[in-house]
Amino acid sequence: MYLAVLAGGSGTRFWPASRKLRPKQLLPLGPAWPRSLLQRTVERLLPLTDRSRVLIMTGAHLREASLRELPQLTADNFLAEPRAKNTAPCIAWATALVFRDNPDGILVVVPSDQHIADEPAFRAAVERAIESARAGAITTIGVVPSRPETGFGYIERGAPRAPGVFSVQRFVEKPSLEKAKEYMASGRFDWNAGMFVFRARDMLSALTRHAPELAEGARKVAAERDDKARYEAAVEAFFDSAPSISIDYAVMEKEEGLAVVPAEFGWSDLGSWESAWELAEKDDGGNVGAKGALFIDASNNLVQSSGTSENRTIALLGVSDLCVVDTGDALLVMPRSRSQDVRLVVEALKERDETLL
Amino acid sequence: MYLAVLAGGSGTRFWPASRKLRPKQLLPLGPAWPRSLLQRTVERLLPLTDRSRVLIMTGAHLREASLRELPQLTADNFLAEPRAKNTAPCIAWATALVFRDNPDGILVVVPSDQHIADEPAFRAAVERAIESARAGAITTIGVVPSRPETGFGYIERGAPRAPGVFSVQRFVEKPSLEKAKEYMASGRFDWNAGMFVFRARDMLSALTRHAPELAEGARKVAAERDDKARYEAAVEAFFDSAPSISIDYAVMEKEEGLAVVPAEFGWSDLGSWESAWELAEKDDGGNVGAKGALFIDASNNLVQSSGTSENRTIALLGVSDLCVVDTGDALLVMPRSRSQDVRLVVEALKERDETLL
Repeated sequence: MYLAVLAGGSGTRFWPASRKLRPKQLLPLGPAWPRSLLQRTVERLLPLTDRSRVLIMTGAHLREASLRELPQLTADNFLAEPRAKNTAPCIAWATALVFRDNPDGILVVVPSDQHIADEPAFRAAVERAIESARAGAITTIGVVPSRPETGFGYIERGAPRAPGVFSVQRFVEKPSLEKAKEYMASGRFDWNAGMFVFRARDMLSALTRHAPELAEGARKVAAERDDKARYEAAVEAFFDSAPSISIDYAVMEKEEGLAVVPAEFGWSDLGSWESAWELAEKDDGGNVGAKGALFIDASNNLVQSSGTSENRTIALLGVSDLCVVDTGDALLVMPRSRSQDVRLVVEALKERDETLL
Repeated sequence: MYLAVLAGGSGTRFWPASRKLRPKQLLPLGPAWPRSLLQRTVERLLPLTDRSRVLIMTGAHLREASLRELPQLTADNFLAEPRAKNTAPCIAWATALVFRDNPDGILVVVPSDQHIADEPAFRAAVERAIESARAGAITTIGVVPSRPETGFGYIERGAPRAPGVFSVQRFVEKPSLEKAKEYMASGRFDWNAGMFVFRARDMLSALTRHAPELAEGARKVAAERDDKARYEAAVEAFFDSAPSISIDYAVMEKEEGLAVVPAEFGWSDLGSWESAWELAEKDDGGNVGAKGALFIDASNNLVQSSGTSENRTIALLGVSDLCVVDTGDALLVMPRSRSQDVRLVVEALKERDETLL
């Protein structure tokens, strides 16, 4: 089994903690502290494979910072994208590399910036999906919904194929609230969490069918694997010409015969400071405090501090439901309920001080 | 005329900006920016005297920092108290020094940490009080009340003595709200703002009558003025034995024949971050921002920043009526309405990290 970790995110939702050169997956968000989400993602799946079979797919500009989070890996584990082209080109690249070694090799593709509370349950789902992939189905792990969420895509289950494995009826886009409630009530829909398990040969033929230029380009890259200079030139050429497209659009929504493994393992996409607060350990007053935080008549606040003096004190007096995020060069104060609007600050800073992005 | 500035305050109400070694009068609060309140206090009255006749009464530990705020003065202008003993001992000391030079010398005693908007009106009131003092009355400048404030003492006017000058009927302690409303409606009560004007000889005889040990001790100190070592030893001995007592208790509430000059000059005691916000210049949203503050859907906030990086950005998103005070080693976030409770933070820090006080 090969573990392919999607670690190219450039999220701005966690500004000021997240930056272009320190995206979300490199942060110790929620209960991951003091480890980063990327580190937790790799540790969670290393029991199922060998470190030589881990592929970290990230932007070239993030390789160094990502490597610092993964001391058990080396630069050889990295597939560094010269430019961001969404998920399909890098998954094609990883698939072609594995195919060259072993066409029956199984890839487990996971995002690097999610939270998973129940790791044994997660690994069990991955193992079930591996079984399904071994039988020839591109398999996705679906998260059983716990609320009628309108922010995620859904996967509809079709006929059962094996215990805990279903055919995929269809992928559906982010629904209206009404639709989301219907989906949840039906018991036949799972959240698309972007986790895919497949044999290299199966993904490569699916790519050949639905996105032949990606399949062709990725094969060319893999063919040059043994000559560093030629390989790098081939990667460069591939990312120059590749379309920017997600694996969902390029393959999943078009491919027949997909399978889904619905599972529950305390999943969160950790989409904002609000969810970081929800997941973190709290004191009796519901506060999440960095070292040095002092809460007086203050409840349900999140204080996050990094890059500041060791002895810095952050005192919250008489406030509730605030996020206070301090990174030394920047400080953000907002109600937790405005977490989705951090982008407004990022947009204002584009006009004013790009160095903070 | 001698200007005697009470600059010994150790206020904690402006934590984290104010500290033991950086009390309120050394801060550029309200519209004083970028000058400190102490600097503004001296500049406001220098037109009425000569810089050689300015006496800064402060704690020995604050002399250096105070001197930095007053580049027009020298160490000779300072009366450095070895320990804090409230206002009576240091006023007795200053009075005895002036008396030695010139028994008819007039002292104008003012606090160093207040805000005065209308400086010409203030100087006119001081000049009127000087006239009254020249005629032999210990004279206080009373502030005509603009609201039924329960946080200040009041001075009741008696019979008129001269245009704009009244006998003092009595000093009264901080009243109940009911009493404060009565006082205000009567038109006969002014706020005691701690500003006194008197001839050295008159204060020294008042001290001799009501606090003879202070008068005696201060005379001994003044007698040693010309020998540095003996002078310092005398100051030390005086502050060792002197009672800690305010000039109000020691003299004003007991002395007969006092005068009051009621006046209006846009006075504020600047008692808390709330009043700092009230007095400061605001943007269209009612925000008071340090350089580097960014307000988005945010109104009526105060952001104060000092001792942090030049390029630090403080972003407030979707919050109203907050104080955010950042000093590099500490950060305070609270509603403006909780400004009076900063002492709760200071008390908590006494248990935890004295270095921040």
